[in-house]
Amino acid sequence: MGKQLTGAFLALGSPQEKPDLRYRIGFAVPDPVVYVQQAGKKYLVVSLLDRELARRVAPDIQVYSPDALRIPRALRGTFCGWIAGLLHELNIHTVSVAADFPVRVADQLRRTGLRLLVADGPLTSGRAIKTRTEVDRITTCQRAAVQAMRAAIRLIAGARVDQKNRLCVRGRLLTAEHVRRAIYQVLVNHNCSGEGTIVACGEQAATPHSIGRGPLRAHQSIVIDIFPRHLEHGYWGDLTRTVVKGAPSPALQNMYAAVRAAQTAALSEIRSGVSGRRVHRTAAAVLARCGFKTGLLDGKAQGFIHSTGHGVGLEVHEAPSLGLRPGRLRAGHVVTVEPGLYYFQHGGVRIEDTVLVTRRGCRKLAFCEDVFQV
Amino acid sequence: MGKQLTGAFLALGSPQEKPDLRYRIGFAVPDPVVYVQQAGKKYLVVSLLDRELARRVAPDIQVYSPDALRIPRALRGTFCGWIAGLLHELNIHTVSVAADFPVRVADQLRRTGLRLLVADGPLTSGRAIKTRTEVDRITTCQRAAVQAMRAAIRLIAGARVDQKNRLCVRGRLLTAEHVRRAIYQVLVNHNCSGEGTIVACGEQAATPHSIGRGPLRAHQSIVIDIFPRHLEHGYWGDLTRTVVKGAPSPALQNMYAAVRAAQTAALSEIRSGVSGRRVHRTAAAVLARCGFKTGLLDGKAQGFIHSTGHGVGLEVHEAPSLGLRPGRLRAGHVVTVEPGLYYFQHGGVRIEDTVLVTRRGCRKLAFCEDVFQV
Repeated sequence: MGKQLTGAFLALGSPQEKPDLRYRIGFAVPDPVVYVQQAGKKYLVVSLLDRELARRVAPDIQVYSPDALRIPRALRGTFCGWIAGLLHELNIHTVSVAADFPVRVADQLRRTGLRLLVADGPLTSGRAIKTRTEVDRITTCQRAAVQAMRAAIRLIAGARVDQKNRLCVRGRLLTAEHVRRAIYQVLVNHNCSGEGTIVACGEQAATPHSIGRGPLRAHQSIVIDIFPRHLEHGYWGDLTRTVVKGAPSPALQNMYAAVRAAQTAALSEIRSGVSGRRVHRTAAAVLARCGFKTGLLDGKAQGFIHSTGHGVGLEVHEAPSLGLRPGRLRAGHVVTVEPGLYYFQHGGVRIEDTVLVTRRGCRKLAFCEDVFQV
Repeated sequence: MGKQLTGAFLALGSPQEKPDLRYRIGFAVPDPVVYVQQAGKKYLVVSLLDRELARRVAPDIQVYSPDALRIPRALRGTFCGWIAGLLHELNIHTVSVAADFPVRVADQLRRTGLRLLVADGPLTSGRAIKTRTEVDRITTCQRAAVQAMRAAIRLIAGARVDQKNRLCVRGRLLTAEHVRRAIYQVLVNHNCSGEGTIVACGEQAATPHSIGRGPLRAHQSIVIDIFPRHLEHGYWGDLTRTVVKGAPSPALQNMYAAVRAAQTAALSEIRSGVSGRRVHRTAAAVLARCGFKTGLLDGKAQGFIHSTGHGVGLEVHEAPSLGLRPGRLRAGHVVTVEPGLYYFQHGGVRIEDTVLVTRRGCRKLAFCEDVFQV
């Protein structure tokens, strides 16, 4: 979360790579653009190549190409020059920039006499509160994730177990890569990409960011975390289930029951006005009450080692946080609720749904069955 | 292109989002990491959550988590603190950073007394010269692009033309979105994502970055630009063809012949030691000799309005440039060669292949037929 905007605001970058820019201008091109917002008015500098496109798709923005600006000779052909030219045109001498504004251009601008106010994060302007269109877009992705999850679980449920406890389908070993490919194929039929999908089995699942590789095994937990991004509008969904083919150990069964209870408790806590920290502490308390320790065990981080959730929108991790950072939930926030437990001896368990925060509670954007033993 | 490295080098960011970081550490996690390189040794600070993963997949890097560093109290819990702790551990007082290093952390570090040397671009260290593994990875993507291109062209070639000159397949209008979906489906079978694929017809094709929407039409050019990204290793390919269903106008036929001649001429110019500018000027000269004007026509940028090519690797646009920027090609560079012509009256034409630069010439990474009228 960053400071709120005051005065003029400046951004520089590729709208395809910078969600903040894409959000503000409403379209994505690969090449860098300069964006200034002042008193509700929006200004953009793009290359001549992109000028007609920008004018067509963003009629509410005043679009310049560099040839229309007075750019100091020494800065011609540089983005600093584009910025200096636009700020001169608008008679602006002080601007706010986000924390990740590039240092080289910042230094150049300061040398021209411009005063930069550097925020402590992104320059938020309500991006965390979703419009109905945005909620629909995230819901589309979440529904795609549910379809892909069902396909993945069907594949695992239908597998045979060989003598070494490895899963096989049609005489071939079933690997994390196979399941991931099946997930990608369902997602693409919903116009989504599933890059980074996690299918992690056994000890791999004890490392939350391990995407998983190689043969899947029976009697161990398989964490499946699908976060589809829509290929046209760029919004995300986020869904996780944990399944076991065969017979889970009593330890795994207890972990699963505790994580499910933690998710239920966290979901029941969510409503407008509640702090993210309180939701996180609720989930953590359930897990602790079930006897699960968190911290350095045998020198490795184990237990409930991440936050309970995060915002989802044009980024898969964005504000608000359901963790230890300050901040309250508000109606219109879209957040994941994803407690988990990770032990190198037993594996990992995580259950995640994505919900819309409302005045009195929350609702899941899409329904996905909660299955464990398959 | 940036300065070469001298002394210690510092980077901060998400390896999944920063190709330079992913290149240096050899794996991708979503959360930010701090990376320092000094005298050939590599150091990384990651959260406790990612520490075991990083140690397993990057045994050549010394991996710290913040709890193992002496971080000044005022900086605890910040990335600036991670950096200060690591630099203290390594006794480093001056570091180089890339041009896009975030200004807020830069300002904080300067206040601690650290000297920052800011490069004028990315901190290159031979990323433009590809290893055999990298060439294989880009080739995989390029072959996927060829398969997807053939599927797209088959779809267009097999369409019926209705009374309003719109393309139809099985009684339904064939749209840019349909063709894009067919491309995505082929790509996903090759473990690639095709986000941003361009299928642009008629006037849409006259704007190079327009991805195209709505019904496709006969007798107009359709630009198909496919740049797949591999979902596991993250490398890209890049391929463009331009087709017409039906009868292209004489103007379009001349544009196509000129662009093909320009590509042939540019390809024959490429070898180690030649400047990118010279390759670009060769392509531009062929187009000019064929009578095609470039510049502001009717107040809009028209003609050959982009560079002839760019490097391809962990980014779809990276060094070197085949444009007006200085710099020479070297064996091991992988570049696109993609002259084009764009006129709002006639539409657009672009032909693009991706090649490996060799000592004596270049070779296409994958063969794709050169078809126009389908």
